[in-house]
Amino acid sequence: MMERVFLAGRRTIQGELEAALEGMTRNPVALVVAGRTDAGVHATHAVAHVDIPERDHDAKEWDLANFTYRLNRILADDVRIHNISLAPANFHARFSALRRHYVYKIADNQQLVPPLKRIDVATWYRPLDVDRMNAASARLLGEHDFTTFCKPNGSGSSSAIRRLEVFSWRRDADGYLYADVIADAFCYSMVRNIVGAVVCVGEGRFEPEWISTLLEERKRVSESLVFPARGLTLVDVEYPADSELLERSKTTIGLRTEFAE
Amino acid sequence: MMERVFLAGRRTIQGELEAALEGMTRNPVALVVAGRTDAGVHATHAVAHVDIPERDHDAKEWDLANFTYRLNRILADDVRIHNISLAPANFHARFSALRRHYVYKIADNQQLVPPLKRIDVATWYRPLDVDRMNAASARLLGEHDFTTFCKPNGSGSSSAIRRLEVFSWRRDADGYLYADVIADAFCYSMVRNIVGAVVCVGEGRFEPEWISTLLEERKRVSESLVFPARGLTLVDVEYPADSELLERSKTTIGLRTEFAE
Repeated sequence: MMERVFLAGRRTIQGELEAALEGMTRNPVALVVAGRTDAGVHATHAVAHVDIPERDHDAKEWDLANFTYRLNRILADDVRIHNISLAPANFHARFSALRRHYVYKIADNQQLVPPLKRIDVATWYRPLDVDRMNAASARLLGEHDFTTFCKPNGSGSSSAIRRLEVFSWRRDADGYLYADVIADAFCYSMVRNIVGAVVCVGEGRFEPEWISTLLEERKRVSESLVFPARGLTLVDVEYPADSELLERSKTTIGLRTEFAE
Repeated sequence: MMERVFLAGRRTIQGELEAALEGMTRNPVALVVAGRTDAGVHATHAVAHVDIPERDHDAKEWDLANFTYRLNRILADDVRIHNISLAPANFHARFSALRRHYVYKIADNQQLVPPLKRIDVATWYRPLDVDRMNAASARLLGEHDFTTFCKPNGSGSSSAIRRLEVFSWRRDADGYLYADVIADAFCYSMVRNIVGAVVCVGEGRFEPEWISTLLEERKRVSESLVFPARGLTLVDVEYPADSELLERSKTTIGLRTEFAE
């Protein structure tokens, strides 16, 4: 259980949190996260849980009053804890989750991105047509084998079957293209891959039908279609009612045994 | 004229721009900027000019069509050029300026600052009272010798007389304290100093009158009152009508001969 995640010397949110919690509680801590994003992807709402040994349930090191405040004082300012609470029975941050909600932002058509807004926006030099983007995106909705758009993660045994529930584009107040992307789960690099493919349609290089052809081929698309991590932000993870947590975990584990979300 | 600014090996906006322009035009370039901010201060609207030798006025290296686009392609994404135009006669980016407008943002009362919003917000642990902040700030309005709030810049001969036109606080949509600060010009570290002093009143440690006493003492306040660079953003530099540019420069040079703005 004490596997600690270090990606080639990079800082990870999980690693930062485990180190901070271990410092505060003087206990080894293994965090279970709802999902692991690619390096450089943002999150405004991520979920994780830790199991505490029964003997520590009343230990003052784990007293939750002021725990959030103390933890944020230790963490660097690019990681912030919004809320900590006791998890209901059978809660599992990863396996209980019903769906993940990401957004992707693109400044197209050589739009100037003010430096103070650059952190979560990708850029594209050609103009993109919102209607064409939506026509292409709609072809990916529903349950599919997303092998075309999933980067192999080395585990070998993954299923790439996912249920894409929402994939829609609009212009936001800054004039950027703004996508909502919601699925039960995502395989590795999936959002950045489908965004890249849909952009090919949005700029007029291909027709929307091309997306369906790609999907059905189940042949991993070119790495050159992958859009940058910086434009991607996890904004929500949804869980079922407490009474359905155990059932949901069983279903999830039955469906997928691979590493990535 | 070819003095190049390097601050102890730090990147500077001026240095980045001069290097990019020299690469594009194959000419030595000396940028004149409206003001130099402390390291770490942001700007959404800064102004600079360059003089081109008369022999180069028609040189295609200086052709302004597409110049902005090409320049932004060279610059790192934390520096962006919004617009380039031919300056009117007698325009001087620094000496012609009528006034500078800064904003300062503070997340007080242990408010959690989401990492995606952290870049231009300073934090303060105690709650701050907007009315007390405004009562204290109002005492600095008008023309004063701001020696109390100016960090000496080594030139020795500076005047610290400035005319503070606006210094007012409100809560913005994020719940942060948001100050508009406008003056004809600012001496080194001045905004960060007056913000720090006003916070002492806002949190209740001193009464608003204390600000007037400090100002009249003309004794540099403690370095511990200086608020961080990160909360400060230059948002505008205002110039007079073209016909008044020369007169304005003469007035400015008569008033101030020091380095900082």
